[in-house]
Amino acid sequence: MKTAAVIMAGGRGERFWPTSREKRPKQFHSLTADEKTLLQLTKERIGDIVQTEDIFVVTNKKYADLVREQLPDIPVENILAEPVDRNTAPCVGFAASVIEKKYGDAIMMALPSDHLIKSNTLFRDSLKNAVDIAETKDALVTIGIMPVYPETGYGYIHFSKNGGNIYKVLEFIEKPDFDKAKEYFDSGEYLWNSGMFVWKTSVILNEMRKFMPDLMAGLEKIKRCYQTKAFDSIVEAVYPGFKPQSIDYGVMEKITNLSKVCTIPGSFGWNDIGSWLALERVRPIDKNNNALQGNIVNIDCRDILVRGSEKRLIALVGLEGVVVVDTDDALLVCNKENTQDVKKVVEFLKTHGKKEFL
Amino acid sequence: MKTAAVIMAGGRGERFWPTSREKRPKQFHSLTADEKTLLQLTKERIGDIVQTEDIFVVTNKKYADLVREQLPDIPVENILAEPVDRNTAPCVGFAASVIEKKYGDAIMMALPSDHLIKSNTLFRDSLKNAVDIAETKDALVTIGIMPVYPETGYGYIHFSKNGGNIYKVLEFIEKPDFDKAKEYFDSGEYLWNSGMFVWKTSVILNEMRKFMPDLMAGLEKIKRCYQTKAFDSIVEAVYPGFKPQSIDYGVMEKITNLSKVCTIPGSFGWNDIGSWLALERVRPIDKNNNALQGNIVNIDCRDILVRGSEKRLIALVGLEGVVVVDTDDALLVCNKENTQDVKKVVEFLKTHGKKEFL
Repeated sequence: MKTAAVIMAGGRGERFWPTSREKRPKQFHSLTADEKTLLQLTKERIGDIVQTEDIFVVTNKKYADLVREQLPDIPVENILAEPVDRNTAPCVGFAASVIEKKYGDAIMMALPSDHLIKSNTLFRDSLKNAVDIAETKDALVTIGIMPVYPETGYGYIHFSKNGGNIYKVLEFIEKPDFDKAKEYFDSGEYLWNSGMFVWKTSVILNEMRKFMPDLMAGLEKIKRCYQTKAFDSIVEAVYPGFKPQSIDYGVMEKITNLSKVCTIPGSFGWNDIGSWLALERVRPIDKNNNALQGNIVNIDCRDILVRGSEKRLIALVGLEGVVVVDTDDALLVCNKENTQDVKKVVEFLKTHGKKEFL
Repeated sequence: MKTAAVIMAGGRGERFWPTSREKRPKQFHSLTADEKTLLQLTKERIGDIVQTEDIFVVTNKKYADLVREQLPDIPVENILAEPVDRNTAPCVGFAASVIEKKYGDAIMMALPSDHLIKSNTLFRDSLKNAVDIAETKDALVTIGIMPVYPETGYGYIHFSKNGGNIYKVLEFIEKPDFDKAKEYFDSGEYLWNSGMFVWKTSVILNEMRKFMPDLMAGLEKIKRCYQTKAFDSIVEAVYPGFKPQSIDYGVMEKITNLSKVCTIPGSFGWNDIGSWLALERVRPIDKNNNALQGNIVNIDCRDILVRGSEKRLIALVGLEGVVVVDTDDALLVCNKENTQDVKKVVEFLKTHGKKEFL
């Protein structure tokens, strides 16, 4: 059976302002020590298990050119352009429909474009494992991550071991408060929900038909027009009517027959690049726990994260626990404890007529 | 008797990097809410008590053009260019010699160019008072400042009240440690040494002759050539041989017959602009004690001081007690407790081949 990969690359990355901008969100930037962008790294790490011509990218139509530019060897028709953002459920459904139309029933892996992974080898082993289960058992497979601290920003998966490397899913749980997160972390019975899934197109579309019938009706129209002249205009007409919904909330959490759902606990050094703080875990760190990039003078700083260019000089004196991100036209200086609030900067820019900085 | 003013404008202002640069030190910048530069403000506030043609400026020869540009109505021959920096004793002696040659014995006020003063009216009253004492009593008059906290960065003047507004100086004291500063502050018997002096040229030159005879010998050569073609080359030849010395250490602290020395306690809202932190006291402050200048987005910051331009956007999130200074080619982010260490940045730039940022 054909195995296809779907890279979801439509996000805005507002918490990565000022690097991430409306015209070029974070997945189109290199945020690590690697020169490749997050999108390029995502494509690269599945190169061994999926043929290049079977890699699809769903993105906002604004970014279709960027995807073409950064992934030039992917067939242009595999870049699926959303006219508007509608979260991951329509995105997954869109890709599943197109893949099914193109190949008939197929294995599809859905992968966010803003994750970082330390061991590509271990990651590929997990994915291969997932593909195998999805194919032989018609299962909906999620890649779970063994928590390394009680994070409140992720969803959790309550699992039960039933021998081997594949765990049964008992429950999907939305982002918990700290006490709950602590409880989950301590119990050892919960995994982080990584947002990476593997399933047959027929299996996921079947679940969508049950829980999101309106979405499926629209997707059927799109599917019928795939590879015809009408395709773009139908997508343009139908997509805005989709209700914004995540695949977790819209489908996974609603599945009652959980015997079809399983999780593979990955331990390949996973990082969700959710805020500037995440870069600490993936960038080289000096002996005072500073992650510094750019033309920098550091006088007695500790625990700071700085991202600048090779041009402008950045001098840092006596700082602790601060994030500095310098770009050509905008600068961010942020307390490490407030990196989630970078979104508030973007909100402010939107509401105060400073659109040139968005 | 003629009254002349000498503005000392040769400093480097390294603690005001990155605004203050080798090519344009802090006194040639506007650092307050006023558009005028510190030098222009210094000249302006003595405009009522000294004729413009009697205002002299001593500066490094590198900055003579800047002085001409910023103070266009001051006679060009009143700009005294030092070929090298030798601290305030040679600077004061240089000006006193030239003034005496030009006018005969005269009253001379020596004023640093990096002070800010809230009430120009009260300041002028103090200066007039000082001129009067210097003229009638042949006194060396220093302007003292009633301390408002136990600052360790200033010299102190131990004084005794003897009726009226003029106090006798008992002792000049160099920068104290915190315990001493606290003791001085609590006693009410000490003033800050502002570095502003008023005296007759004959009186200060006489003291210099006693305590700095080598300096005086050189100054005599310079004096003889004033307004001749040889002047510039003599200054060029003699000045580098002067020992760097402050007027406080070289002369004032050595005077044994203190009956000639007196101090006028000024209470005109004095600020020595010694580090970025000083700007807090002279810039508009919002309700969270932030002093913000530029194109700024402030999300939940307290006690921060930011100086930017109207062009680049500066977003600040969740910060406390931080100084941010943004210029075209260089950025400073500094803990408020470490503003003195900005000098270390300048040192680093000097020793690491980054001269373009000096």
